[in-house]
Amino acid sequence: MITLDPRLLNDCEVLGKFKLCHVLLMRDANYPWCVLVPDRENIVEIFDLSNEDQQQLNLESNSLLEFLKNEFSADKMNVAALGNVVPQLHIHHIARYVTDIAWPSPVWGAVPAKAYNDTELSEIIGKLRLGFGKMELGFTT
Amino acid sequence: MITLDPRLLNDCEVLGKFKLCHVLLMRDANYPWCVLVPDRENIVEIFDLSNEDQQQLNLESNSLLEFLKNEFSADKMNVAALGNVVPQLHIHHIARYVTDIAWPSPVWGAVPAKAYNDTELSEIIGKLRLGFGKMELGFTT
Repeated sequence: MITLDPRLLNDCEVLGKFKLCHVLLMRDANYPWCVLVPDRENIVEIFDLSNEDQQQLNLESNSLLEFLKNEFSADKMNVAALGNVVPQLHIHHIARYVTDIAWPSPVWGAVPAKAYNDTELSEIIGKLRLGFGKMELGFTT
Repeated sequence: MITLDPRLLNDCEVLGKFKLCHVLLMRDANYPWCVLVPDRENIVEIFDLSNEDQQQLNLESNSLLEFLKNEFSADKMNVAALGNVVPQLHIHHIARYVTDIAWPSPVWGAVPAKAYNDTELSEIIGKLRLGFGKMELGFTT
């Protein structure tokens, strides 16, 4: 297992792991927002992964996008690998709504993160873990 | 062939097409910035593509990222599918530098686009087309 970057751990809840990627929830109640982090050492760009891992990431990422869009009735999914601040490869998956506070801008730098309260946080974590367990991607907590 | 969204055509130069995707250059001299648009009708999310097309997009996207990083000696690549304004699926591939005007922020909304002059534009288009032709992705202009 890799060591997750402390800045990711500071901003996110760790939900568990698919076959390749750790899956995290961003602590920002403005949008359902998950982050995938491939469990591989010293990877910065997607093309640093082996071809097999790239295909697995593709599968996990697209499955997660489709799940989030359906589960949260999103209007649009945003997916991005930036990494200008935290170089450890991590891919953002964000459910967007035409009514959300940053729409139609990208979320980064738009508004400060909004904290989940304890009830909201346990509810969304429960919902995500239940859904991930049904996705046939080897999810474990 | 699909009809490219007029807002993409307004912001970009069309460079040609790989096996699956049209490849465009964003008219913003702040960063080498290409956009892939799968040549498929009515696709909004990556998971709307067939599995075969998802794999081909993955190949074209990762090949493009690696090419841009090497060709332009970038410090980091940014890749994103947002589509909040233009729903036609298009994926941004942006070469970033620790010295660029928006670093370390994402490029969207950071600073206005900087126009290429005619010489710069023809040089970068020539360089990209030459490189794309060597990538074994069926590039045609």
